[in-house]
Amino acid sequence: MYAEILAVGSELTTGAKLDTNSQWLSLALADLGISVLFHTTVADELDWMVAALKIAAERVDVIIITGGLGPTLDDLTREAAARCVDVPLVVDEHSLAQIKAMFARRKRDMPERNVIQAQFPQGAEPIPNARGTAPGFWMEIPRNGRPPCRVAALPGVPSEMKPMFKEQVVPRLETGSNMIRRARINCFGVGESAAEQLLGDLTARGRDPEVGITVHEATITLRIVAKGTSTHECEQKISSTREIILNRMGTLVFGEEDEELEHAVIRLLGQQRKTLSTAESGTGGLLAHRLTSVPGFDSSYGGGYVVPTTAARLSMLEIDPRVMQHYGAISPQTAMALASACRRRFTSDFALAVTEWPSFKAEDASQAVPASYIALATKKDLIFEEVTHFGDPAIAKSRTAKAALNMLRLRLLGVR
Amino acid sequence: MYAEILAVGSELTTGAKLDTNSQWLSLALADLGISVLFHTTVADELDWMVAALKIAAERVDVIIITGGLGPTLDDLTREAAARCVDVPLVVDEHSLAQIKAMFARRKRDMPERNVIQAQFPQGAEPIPNARGTAPGFWMEIPRNGRPPCRVAALPGVPSEMKPMFKEQVVPRLETGSNMIRRARINCFGVGESAAEQLLGDLTARGRDPEVGITVHEATITLRIVAKGTSTHECEQKISSTREIILNRMGTLVFGEEDEELEHAVIRLLGQQRKTLSTAESGTGGLLAHRLTSVPGFDSSYGGGYVVPTTAARLSMLEIDPRVMQHYGAISPQTAMALASACRRRFTSDFALAVTEWPSFKAEDASQAVPASYIALATKKDLIFEEVTHFGDPAIAKSRTAKAALNMLRLRLLGVR
Repeated sequence: MYAEILAVGSELTTGAKLDTNSQWLSLALADLGISVLFHTTVADELDWMVAALKIAAERVDVIIITGGLGPTLDDLTREAAARCVDVPLVVDEHSLAQIKAMFARRKRDMPERNVIQAQFPQGAEPIPNARGTAPGFWMEIPRNGRPPCRVAALPGVPSEMKPMFKEQVVPRLETGSNMIRRARINCFGVGESAAEQLLGDLTARGRDPEVGITVHEATITLRIVAKGTSTHECEQKISSTREIILNRMGTLVFGEEDEELEHAVIRLLGQQRKTLSTAESGTGGLLAHRLTSVPGFDSSYGGGYVVPTTAARLSMLEIDPRVMQHYGAISPQTAMALASACRRRFTSDFALAVTEWPSFKAEDASQAVPASYIALATKKDLIFEEVTHFGDPAIAKSRTAKAALNMLRLRLLGVR
Repeated sequence: MYAEILAVGSELTTGAKLDTNSQWLSLALADLGISVLFHTTVADELDWMVAALKIAAERVDVIIITGGLGPTLDDLTREAAARCVDVPLVVDEHSLAQIKAMFARRKRDMPERNVIQAQFPQGAEPIPNARGTAPGFWMEIPRNGRPPCRVAALPGVPSEMKPMFKEQVVPRLETGSNMIRRARINCFGVGESAAEQLLGDLTARGRDPEVGITVHEATITLRIVAKGTSTHECEQKISSTREIILNRMGTLVFGEEDEELEHAVIRLLGQQRKTLSTAESGTGGLLAHRLTSVPGFDSSYGGGYVVPTTAARLSMLEIDPRVMQHYGAISPQTAMALASACRRRFTSDFALAVTEWPSFKAEDASQAVPASYIALATKKDLIFEEVTHFGDPAIAKSRTAKAALNMLRLRLLGVR
């Protein structure tokens, strides 16, 4: 079954607003085994909307419309759909009562123009909206010698559209076959092509389930997409491929779905009842910001220093000025001195420290590759790592913070 | 003149990737006075692509295609365009030489399949790509009794597409009439409806130039959109409206275009040769992260403490434990004690401090509105402010960091 998503609104075609609904709906339709062939976005003009609807009804079996259901003169989805099948708009009394009740709950009178939101193309079924005043509708566009094209019209506000789609459109579309389920496994500490080598045949095109690789600020995400005739079948496929991936990638894997390195670090620290502090030069507080964004971080993360300047490093952490003089602010020795002073002051089990790095530009092949140093102080030892910078300078802070978190993660796993 | 943007790629229609090019191009075309009526996204299938191109050529005068210019079998934009006007693909020797040279610079042999990237529909003009191997092309689709529809095909990679559009497509499209120019003025410290009241008639619909208001994490952005027959006319309109806005909004305005509060603070500190340090509980390093992200921050921002726990506040900043015992961790007194201890330790001119806040849920009307306190220590005095939390807890860190920056900004401007 093929689908098209039709986003309505001049705020989209003028570029004032970014359409994210179409992407969300494409993924949601794929989960039902429905392939999306087209996204169309159309300005708020009746003739163009009718034309776009007619084109879509010719080339696909399901159309999901978002937007154009508000109460203003610009909101033309209802009228375009009615025009497309040549029927009048009729008021649905039940929907009208619901819209009035919504205004009453908010202690406001319903403006007369909101009546239009209870009008639907004759023969269409209203789709109630529990979160806003704009109901959607479900209708069919007859086609010569073919089954009708099915249409769901939903509001453009994502927080209204998504539950309406899940609760009221999905049951109408579910076929019980060709389901899709997805999973994500997140890795750090390996490049994209090295990850591909480790995964071997898993990433081959046409494999079932498929495994894809994406990279974002040095985090490698492996996406498993399983197709099957039931949820159970999809989940079994994902489960066996997930096992193979965890096996091949080993400790490169730090989390699944939305988990970030800081979640893994806080989880491991909590399990081992250990505490952490941080001393940041180049990352300038980002490491602390990431750690303090994890729910329940405060039993494991004690806090940190942001010491972007030499003066701050010397006076706040009282590290030996000769270390920095002799080795420089950007050196393994300085990183280790910072980590060790920080751990002592916070009396934490671990301390992570990050030096500065020289400023650099993307793709300047004539320059030497700049580096920064990260260090980890523990009760027993002091280790460091070099982080080289290339590519986009805008992500240097993020990459370095991740490298520091990963160094601690590996230690907590006992592999460093 | 009307345009359509045609984004090519199954990674878009499946939802694997979000299309941001079409929004960018819509804004860029509006700047040239060209209205975008449709965005179409089509999967990598030749027949559908040809059909989508033909539909677009009927309804608009300019088509901008993005994507489908890579070297793989899935990359069908060249072929679809050729099929659409019924011409063969022909190799452009100059483009081929450029692609070979790009591989040579990267010290790699050109794979045979990359030859296809130098093929274009007969009669099309290649658009060179200085940043990647995929050249674009410019062509015309003849139309019965009407001027031809003009087509630019560009790669989907935004960092290649954008400069190619600006440098090579804009000159081909510029008409010298119906230009549009935009400006943004950023404010903090006022709600959306209060801003609307201050602006009065400026936000009236249909005003020339138009002024719109958007809110993001408590920052109010005023967007001016001016239309005219020349760049000069647009800029004059913007300039006079900008003056009125600056006049009415006064010190609520902290910056323009991409400027954030941290840019304003670092700029003012630099102008006044003053220094700043920070002590953060609830913002957990975000204030430091924002300040250290401003180029040249290090002559004004000395660094800070991240002290999310009571233990850290007591031991790192050595504040009087009786203050926290008596007034609690979330109190004006604790905020001021933190700020004053931080300033002393960093020997900075100013110190900003932020307390924690109680955890809260969005829209829980039964709960009292939770608050946090921010304080500013100067050489002469110690002031505080209450920040109340409502709405989305996910933006509480960002809102509080902004409130702290704004408190210092107003002091530096002499209005607090």
